[in-house]
Amino acid sequence: MTIYNFSAGPATMPDPVIAQIKQDLPSYKNSGMSVMEISHRSKLFDDIIDSAQQDLRDLLEIPDNYQVLFFQGGGTLQFTAAPLNLATKYHKIGLLDSGHWADRAGAEASRVNVDVDVLASTKDEKYVKLPQMPQIKDDDYDYIHVCTNNTIEGTAFSKLPDTGKTELVGDMSSNFMGQKYDVKDFGAIMAGAQKNLGIAGLTIVIVRNDLIGKAQNLPSMIDYQLFAKKRSMFNTPPVFAIYAAGLVLKWLKEQGGVAEMEQRNRKKSNLLYDFLDQSKMFTAPVVKSDRSLVNIPFVTGNPDLDKKLIAEAADNGLLNIKGHRSVGGMRASLYNAMPYEGAVALVDFLNKFEKENGGN
Amino acid sequence: MTIYNFSAGPATMPDPVIAQIKQDLPSYKNSGMSVMEISHRSKLFDDIIDSAQQDLRDLLEIPDNYQVLFFQGGGTLQFTAAPLNLATKYHKIGLLDSGHWADRAGAEASRVNVDVDVLASTKDEKYVKLPQMPQIKDDDYDYIHVCTNNTIEGTAFSKLPDTGKTELVGDMSSNFMGQKYDVKDFGAIMAGAQKNLGIAGLTIVIVRNDLIGKAQNLPSMIDYQLFAKKRSMFNTPPVFAIYAAGLVLKWLKEQGGVAEMEQRNRKKSNLLYDFLDQSKMFTAPVVKSDRSLVNIPFVTGNPDLDKKLIAEAADNGLLNIKGHRSVGGMRASLYNAMPYEGAVALVDFLNKFEKENGGN
Repeated sequence: MTIYNFSAGPATMPDPVIAQIKQDLPSYKNSGMSVMEISHRSKLFDDIIDSAQQDLRDLLEIPDNYQVLFFQGGGTLQFTAAPLNLATKYHKIGLLDSGHWADRAGAEASRVNVDVDVLASTKDEKYVKLPQMPQIKDDDYDYIHVCTNNTIEGTAFSKLPDTGKTELVGDMSSNFMGQKYDVKDFGAIMAGAQKNLGIAGLTIVIVRNDLIGKAQNLPSMIDYQLFAKKRSMFNTPPVFAIYAAGLVLKWLKEQGGVAEMEQRNRKKSNLLYDFLDQSKMFTAPVVKSDRSLVNIPFVTGNPDLDKKLIAEAADNGLLNIKGHRSVGGMRASLYNAMPYEGAVALVDFLNKFEKENGGN
Repeated sequence: MTIYNFSAGPATMPDPVIAQIKQDLPSYKNSGMSVMEISHRSKLFDDIIDSAQQDLRDLLEIPDNYQVLFFQGGGTLQFTAAPLNLATKYHKIGLLDSGHWADRAGAEASRVNVDVDVLASTKDEKYVKLPQMPQIKDDDYDYIHVCTNNTIEGTAFSKLPDTGKTELVGDMSSNFMGQKYDVKDFGAIMAGAQKNLGIAGLTIVIVRNDLIGKAQNLPSMIDYQLFAKKRSMFNTPPVFAIYAAGLVLKWLKEQGGVAEMEQRNRKKSNLLYDFLDQSKMFTAPVVKSDRSLVNIPFVTGNPDLDKKLIAEAADNGLLNIKGHRSVGGMRASLYNAMPYEGAVALVDFLNKFEKENGGN
């Protein structure tokens, strides 16, 4: 039975990457050591981290005046790091409250005494649409935080909000490298690796040079300037996670890059959305204009039926389609590494399930 | 040629662990997914993290009134976390300055506005011996920070300093599970995994219940109480690193536990120290009473000869014996996963090198 893993993260990885990781054990490049055992101060690792960074730069066309940094601690640690590094003038940020992870970013910023203004929220509408960016003054906020893709709620900013002259900071964890954005539109981007870039335990930060170095005396592990200076190796970096990300990046290049990925993700998600929208059993609650290409929540409206569906799907090799507890129902994540065949198998299964369970 | 990897960290791992990791690819326990792809909210991962924690508790005989927590960010993030969580009464800690990593801990505590008193330092003696704990008053410090094993300088507190009624917090990164300590002697212990417990990107914190929950409004990723409440899964934990640590812990149990490891580490290091002490070419600079069981710096006194030695050693499969740049010369790390045969091979090589290069 072919297994398709629709987990929202940690998530499915490309088969050739898993195969390469296996092949590189127990001895990486005939060194007699696995990647897990090599020093971060070695030539072997220098090559790994340098080429991961270069491939990221190539794939996202990152301008030279941006740093590419490798952190630990997930998006959540960046919710502390970004305000402490970047909110140094007004000590205030604006937030578009598009869901759970945007709200979490605001909560962490508040904890380090940075003021957070919620500029717009769709909480009252259960986040089935995106909040609209209001007009703001140019001198109120250090930056506006936006979660470009809302993993739990299934919305995405395919068109970025217009923040005028105020910097935009994007939490891109769940559509990083899966949907094309212009890095120049952001002052900084943060992204956990565990959706589209390999394994949990690695976070990418892309930040424009002129924004860093303005904060003093930060804890080292969240200091953007220090990490830039130390090539992300102030202390021991997550060597294996960076290696795995590097393999995913090579695979992405081979596949044709981010534009190609976006096209494929659009094709996969359209297939599923089209099915859901014509179904009499299933509903995709998110308004059409704001739908995510990679995280697709859907419900039957009957929790018992949802439960039955999730169990039967798993029996058929379609794993982890249970929705987030805050939304309920189902969610299919169709990240870069999910092949088109996975989306087809899911739609076929849903179609069959609907017919067998009293649908049209 | 047999390869022995004397790296100070990331470091050599047990062969059976590497073999198991390879065997578990691409499908972990017939799930159709690798460990890198499983959700941290899955039963598969619940079993991994629960048994890793239980094995840690068993191996270190951790009392029930201590938490075992899994963090990211290495020892360095704990140098921020420990003072913010634990220095809540006097906002002051005492430090035994035994080397680079003790000094770094003090620097990070200062950055978050916790006062640091250096109670004793052997910096002027180039850290070849341990600082002596002075008498302190009971109500001056929230805790005393001690680095139990100084990876760079090669010293270790085999007998813990007497801090009276003041809590002791131990950075045990480089002799964690390799030398036996009584957890009850500490208020908290922190340890990066990348020496004795697997791969970089995971940090263990063991902390007594009554010490946590006194700090308010901490960044979530360093909040001991929050991590205790959320079973170290407030956000996505480093799933693969916890899995690898779990395999190492199973291996440790099979080998006979920490006391057995300490005995083996003592046997390996004695072999090397005995050779170095009788040599006319090599010197082990650390005073005998304070020597580490696992990190052994040594020099010839001639940087050119050191360089030749390091290159020839590598040609003979004895990798990563270059000393830390701050100390120079050589360093052999003999962590748990280094077999006795590795120490023998190193001593044989050093003996031969000395004879071939004008020694006795």
